[in-house]
Amino acid sequence: MLEDWLAPKAAALESRGLTRRLRPRPADEVLIDLAGNDYLGLARDPRVVEAAVAAVREWGTGSTASRLVTGTTELHAELESELAAYTGHEAGLVFSSGYLANLGIITALGGPGTLLVSDEHVHASIVDACRLARSRVEVVPHSDLDSIGKVLAERKEPHAIVLVESVYSVLGDAAPLEALAALALKHNALLLVDEAHGLGVTGNGRGSVAAADLAGLDHVLVTMTLSKAMASQGGAVLGPTILRDHLINRARPFIFDTALNPAACAAALAALRILQGEPARPRRIHETAARLAEACEVMPSSGAVVSVPMPGPREAVAAAEVCLAAGVRVGVFRPPSVPDGISRLRLTARADLSTADVDRACAIISSAIR
Amino acid sequence: MLEDWLAPKAAALESRGLTRRLRPRPADEVLIDLAGNDYLGLARDPRVVEAAVAAVREWGTGSTASRLVTGTTELHAELESELAAYTGHEAGLVFSSGYLANLGIITALGGPGTLLVSDEHVHASIVDACRLARSRVEVVPHSDLDSIGKVLAERKEPHAIVLVESVYSVLGDAAPLEALAALALKHNALLLVDEAHGLGVTGNGRGSVAAADLAGLDHVLVTMTLSKAMASQGGAVLGPTILRDHLINRARPFIFDTALNPAACAAALAALRILQGEPARPRRIHETAARLAEACEVMPSSGAVVSVPMPGPREAVAAAEVCLAAGVRVGVFRPPSVPDGISRLRLTARADLSTADVDRACAIISSAIR
Repeated sequence: MLEDWLAPKAAALESRGLTRRLRPRPADEVLIDLAGNDYLGLARDPRVVEAAVAAVREWGTGSTASRLVTGTTELHAELESELAAYTGHEAGLVFSSGYLANLGIITALGGPGTLLVSDEHVHASIVDACRLARSRVEVVPHSDLDSIGKVLAERKEPHAIVLVESVYSVLGDAAPLEALAALALKHNALLLVDEAHGLGVTGNGRGSVAAADLAGLDHVLVTMTLSKAMASQGGAVLGPTILRDHLINRARPFIFDTALNPAACAAALAALRILQGEPARPRRIHETAARLAEACEVMPSSGAVVSVPMPGPREAVAAAEVCLAAGVRVGVFRPPSVPDGISRLRLTARADLSTADVDRACAIISSAIR
Repeated sequence: MLEDWLAPKAAALESRGLTRRLRPRPADEVLIDLAGNDYLGLARDPRVVEAAVAAVREWGTGSTASRLVTGTTELHAELESELAAYTGHEAGLVFSSGYLANLGIITALGGPGTLLVSDEHVHASIVDACRLARSRVEVVPHSDLDSIGKVLAERKEPHAIVLVESVYSVLGDAAPLEALAALALKHNALLLVDEAHGLGVTGNGRGSVAAADLAGLDHVLVTMTLSKAMASQGGAVLGPTILRDHLINRARPFIFDTALNPAACAAALAALRILQGEPARPRRIHETAARLAEACEVMPSSGAVVSVPMPGPREAVAAAEVCLAAGVRVGVFRPPSVPDGISRLRLTARADLSTADVDRACAIISSAIR
């Protein structure tokens, strides 16, 4: 019965050029990778690798249970403290993925008494969290302060949360955080900022919330991922201690999920410490992003992501294939993974790309997209 | 504003004895652990540890992106093939957690045309998936075939999925899988079985779906976790290839989440291979579970979990504290983590517990609960 149900759906996708297929990669590729999100270039850094190795040997390969049973190790506590201290928040709480961090905080603060005001470009995990939260949800035009102010002012709910990203994943643009925080405060609302693409990249690495001097404010909360600049896996929520305690008691994706494994905690900790000692890394991301944007004749990026609009999904796939054949892997984003419906190449400016590799990538991509 | 909002909620929990707190554990505890879900006792097995170490060194500490970008490595493909082959399914698809595997498959098959029929004792991730799926949801009494048959027969939706677990997490009882599969087939419905507590434990390790000779049937789908018997992290969906292809294209928690890291894939693969070569391990789980159940004067378990009802949450916490002081860690489950509202101790019968440790644990626990 599954065949009858799903085969027509598969055929419909195929006919529109939108079928996605997995391509397992080998360990020893010799590509210039501009598709992954290892922004600081630390996923194969020997210090990060050996921290993970030591943790696997000391703690074992799994955390063995949920955080409230046996899943919380001293490494989790250490990572949470250091993440919070580095980003300027009172407390942190680690989840097994950034997806679950967003589901956790939004559902734990959501409900009929909470209005959720969501930017139309937020990540799928925030969209799903809104659907799950049993709140009224208002989706507002991208970075549109007037619309946000209006729905906040007109709300009946005692609580409200404005949901944004500091740097948007696909387009690479930045949210107007100072104005958003002021607007939220004026309307007695919380501002939740997903720093998935900010941490390690903007604000000299500390992220956009810290750069805007908003970290530690009672009404500004942050989610982030450990799987991009932190070279590992998992996610976290940052904010006041009372929020952390609330999530430990109320966030279902925290309570009922196996804890992040110790090696992933150790890798993220090692990456965080390297970031603190090597401020040149985030600078290098911005230099490279500027070079890529110039070569593709698109607007400079606020973060590591350079977004290159293409005429359609087939053209995007074709250009990416040309790049790959020439030794450069770029990301291809097609509907429904693009907030504006426009297929595009997505280039990430890793800190560890050499100048020669950037030169080569610029030449190959600028030729492929024409 | 967060303080005013959350402090009364925290006080209300505290007054009912339901506040949860994290207790970070050190690496070198000398406890007998009956709380974790490392059922086969492989999380510190040197073969599993060294497989993870080799993978970290070969592949790095993160998968670097989502599965459709750069996150799929050859290790992911290998793990998916071996999991499917071992459990008797055509194909497998790995997620970064079991939670997200359940969200992924249920939302990708859900919608207005699909009725979801959920056993009242299913895991939080299945409950959340039902809320997220935009389907009509019927929650039926625990393992009640008549109720399931009734709602399937009376439905208007063309599609339906019956949602159960092979072995329930908290009570440790088994679902009547043969009867459920027959009932689903009769009503042209799918049966989705969460084998989180079955894989590695029941059916000589292959899980309850294989034991009931249901694996590979077109209408029987499976989700599982890699974070319990597989000693690692992550989850998977098992079923026909057309389901796998559908999820790759439609399951938002698959598409928009960073892939499981290579070391976790390697650890799960190593655990799976050990399980295949050492059939005494699942047998040992059942022997130990029978001993624990006898000592606590409760019903024998269908899996690794022995559930010991307690008079209330405070008594459960107190008994667990007594056990801990005597060197035995047991799980404490209180509302809202118990499907029937009854607080309880939850004991897990790990395959690597020595007879002397089991003797000692039985003596300590049977004394603590009286």
